[in-house]
Amino acid sequence: MITLESFVRGAWQRGNGKPRPLQDPTQETDIALCDSTGLDFAGAVAWARATGGANLRRVGFAERGRWLKALSAAIHAQRDALIAVSAQNGGSTRGDAKFDLDGATGTLAAYAKLAESLGDENFLPDGDGVQLGRTARFWGQHVRVPRPGVAVHVNAFNFPAWGMCEKLACSVLAGVPAISKPGTPTALVAYRVAQVVTQSNALPEGAFQFVCGSLGDTLDWLGPQDTLAFTGSAKTGAMLKGHARLVGANTRVTLEADSLNCAILAPDVGDDADTWSAFVNHLVTDLTQKTGQKCTAVRRILVPRDRVEAVVETLVDRLSRIAIGDPADEATKMGPLASGAQFEDVTKGMKALATVARTACGGPVKLKDRGFFVAPTLFVANDVEADVLHSLEVFGPCASVLCYDGSAAEAVRLANRGGGGLVASVYANDKRWTDDVVLGIAPWHGRIWVCSDKVADQAYAPGMVLPQSIHGGPGRAGGGEELGGLRGLDLYLQRVALQGDQGHIGRRFGRSNPDAAV
Amino acid sequence: MITLESFVRGAWQRGNGKPRPLQDPTQETDIALCDSTGLDFAGAVAWARATGGANLRRVGFAERGRWLKALSAAIHAQRDALIAVSAQNGGSTRGDAKFDLDGATGTLAAYAKLAESLGDENFLPDGDGVQLGRTARFWGQHVRVPRPGVAVHVNAFNFPAWGMCEKLACSVLAGVPAISKPGTPTALVAYRVAQVVTQSNALPEGAFQFVCGSLGDTLDWLGPQDTLAFTGSAKTGAMLKGHARLVGANTRVTLEADSLNCAILAPDVGDDADTWSAFVNHLVTDLTQKTGQKCTAVRRILVPRDRVEAVVETLVDRLSRIAIGDPADEATKMGPLASGAQFEDVTKGMKALATVARTACGGPVKLKDRGFFVAPTLFVANDVEADVLHSLEVFGPCASVLCYDGSAAEAVRLANRGGGGLVASVYANDKRWTDDVVLGIAPWHGRIWVCSDKVADQAYAPGMVLPQSIHGGPGRAGGGEELGGLRGLDLYLQRVALQGDQGHIGRRFGRSNPDAAV
Repeated sequence: MITLESFVRGAWQRGNGKPRPLQDPTQETDIALCDSTGLDFAGAVAWARATGGANLRRVGFAERGRWLKALSAAIHAQRDALIAVSAQNGGSTRGDAKFDLDGATGTLAAYAKLAESLGDENFLPDGDGVQLGRTARFWGQHVRVPRPGVAVHVNAFNFPAWGMCEKLACSVLAGVPAISKPGTPTALVAYRVAQVVTQSNALPEGAFQFVCGSLGDTLDWLGPQDTLAFTGSAKTGAMLKGHARLVGANTRVTLEADSLNCAILAPDVGDDADTWSAFVNHLVTDLTQKTGQKCTAVRRILVPRDRVEAVVETLVDRLSRIAIGDPADEATKMGPLASGAQFEDVTKGMKALATVARTACGGPVKLKDRGFFVAPTLFVANDVEADVLHSLEVFGPCASVLCYDGSAAEAVRLANRGGGGLVASVYANDKRWTDDVVLGIAPWHGRIWVCSDKVADQAYAPGMVLPQSIHGGPGRAGGGEELGGLRGLDLYLQRVALQGDQGHIGRRFGRSNPDAAV
Repeated sequence: MITLESFVRGAWQRGNGKPRPLQDPTQETDIALCDSTGLDFAGAVAWARATGGANLRRVGFAERGRWLKALSAAIHAQRDALIAVSAQNGGSTRGDAKFDLDGATGTLAAYAKLAESLGDENFLPDGDGVQLGRTARFWGQHVRVPRPGVAVHVNAFNFPAWGMCEKLACSVLAGVPAISKPGTPTALVAYRVAQVVTQSNALPEGAFQFVCGSLGDTLDWLGPQDTLAFTGSAKTGAMLKGHARLVGANTRVTLEADSLNCAILAPDVGDDADTWSAFVNHLVTDLTQKTGQKCTAVRRILVPRDRVEAVVETLVDRLSRIAIGDPADEATKMGPLASGAQFEDVTKGMKALATVARTACGGPVKLKDRGFFVAPTLFVANDVEADVLHSLEVFGPCASVLCYDGSAAEAVRLANRGGGGLVASVYANDKRWTDDVVLGIAPWHGRIWVCSDKVADQAYAPGMVLPQSIHGGPGRAGGGEELGGLRGLDLYLQRVALQGDQGHIGRRFGRSNPDAAV
């Protein structure tokens, strides 16, 4: 059985503690061991700052973008091998594995593309300059510059490739080295990707380190120029955010946590509308893709009261035809949950939802003797006001239908009961109704996906995270932001106001400098 | 003696605990009592959200800007009365009081002016739209919308008017109601300003509340849409930022804390340069204005080794001629420290600096039998590496000269030893040297003020905070951001990615909508 190693200070290293086994969730067999005990975490932080940071910032944004392009190509070249690992360690179907891997390479490539317009300087102008004095000679210009610290990336198990690479794309392009920690249950996939990263030599020495296992005392070594970017549960997120060292040093912390994403069907969408088809297709995708283990998957489905029966009937029919089984089998549309712990959590969560809802299909049952399989599960709320519907994220192929009166106000009220979400989707053709919903739910969401007949044919399901749009959300969702094009770099940049002679400060640091244009 | 009241839920109210006396720092006599014990803080939070928020967001940005303009005018109309209170409660000279009050009204007016271009919508486009699908029909547009929460503003004692109004300008314009808490030692000034705010009726009901004394259990009632903006010590700041409720709910917290601001003299600036005159004038201003009680005042003066003697001689000469005395006396250039506690802190700090530096003038001595007077104090470091020089902010008329070798690299290294600052100033005419320093210190500062012969005649001293430039800094300075034109609103807005039909989402929410243009 393989023992996963960590890549620290330029070398692959093994922990000296009691290793934790990783499983094949289809076979329930141990396939790898993972441990990082005893590694030199203080040394990793110092190495990142001194060696990685210096190497990254020896060049400007455009050159770092070329490195990302090379990294994207290197990972893409190993696509088939990585798909096989993803099936084995993540229980991912071929489609699920591609979703993760192509998301990773696609995001790296998107940031490489963005970098082409950033020039060779190591600062980015932030907006236009502004007159400060009684004449325009005394001038102000904001710029953003790379922070000379380290980015600690704590990723979730559900996207071992994409999660690591979307964070890496932003920090590397910003000029900040990363220490990346995968979610342990699927660390074998992340480990294989990390090997490609190091073997490709696409990134300079020190820009990338990989801790497979616990982060040990890493956080105790962070300071004012460092950043912790976490994806995972709200509970763990709060523990990290409140860490005394991070609070005391004003280390930047961003969280992407729980989210009770909702899809809202408007009353004007008839059964023959393209928007209706998209609504149904997207829900089936979000419920079953990655076996529902997506932070952006729909958990609450808001349906006008008189349409509930039609929606439930259609979804139950579609979900019942999903082929569940070995992810390596091409006919399989949905694999197992990623781990035994996941299975425990999901079935426990389903039981909690079942106390306030009717089970239309599926339920908290182990489908096969071997493997963490559950069926796509649709609940229909008996009481749409029950807290558990709006606060418990069951991280599996599971969602609840909640009826409402069809008014924008009621849709807004129920959507916002989620306490802050990553994404909400609105299926509607009535623009006025849509605008009321959009502006009503906007403060509580990081992304709103408006599906109408005009875009139903070419739009992705709302669970799809695109590098052009920010990913994150307020409140329960963590209060953080990632991606969103260049906005994703801000986490790793310091914004500073420059004041002085327009002929110098304005020309050198403003948008008119062709090497610094944004 | 007057008992200060709080303005909560639309009424002026008195606490029911043991009041704390406020002093006239010139006479050392009690002049007011302050207490907020027993007020309904949960009710204040609820009132702000329900009544204040709704009233603010009933209109759009442009109309809220007009309210700020009216508020600025109302405060300005009481200028002379407020200057007198500022002398009595803050020990402020007429010039110091104007600096605070005109800063307040000027910032309100600047945001009123900015609002004119924002239109009547209740969202702001965030950047340009972007194609998301295979055609431009599937489109992305980021917008920022007001958060339906409350802003809790915790201000410092040194700028009772400006501190309250600069925070209020941003939250009100953003559409978020405020609960404002002044620094207790100068709460009489803030109380008088707050009375003007409420009597003017410039703001709608619920938009402004004022807690004179402790905030009680206010923080325990905050949630995901609320914001805490704090100005004060790093120690208190860390306590607030780590507050379990704020961490758990992902309440936004921004801190503006300690800062060892530095001024850097370049080796190329001769005694006959305009930049030299500005350097000396600005240092005298920063040391003596507000008796050195400015978070942006210069604390470390970096001087090329062969210029130290000239700098010290000039500064000692200028500082020795500062008239110290009763701030109500027109001849007075510098008044007392604002309180007895300030006097204790400052003299204790001076003693700590004196262990690693020579005292060129001033020192930890009470100048008069009555009143918290100290002399402008200049230290010359014996050992520029001593930690205390870079970590202890002595919040009074006090700074230290540190010699360096004249190289940009050494200036950068010493400046960044401050661990994160609000502002650094660079006095230089050599552009290349300047650029090296600017890019070297940029990650550790929120603002960099570059003074050269081109702008020496019209620029403000670096301690001046302008609404057009961000105010804040990384690390020790708190890691926060305020002001910076529209950037200052972001603390109170939620950014959300909209995705959908360009013909709808792009037109309605993009920059082409004339009512939403930014």
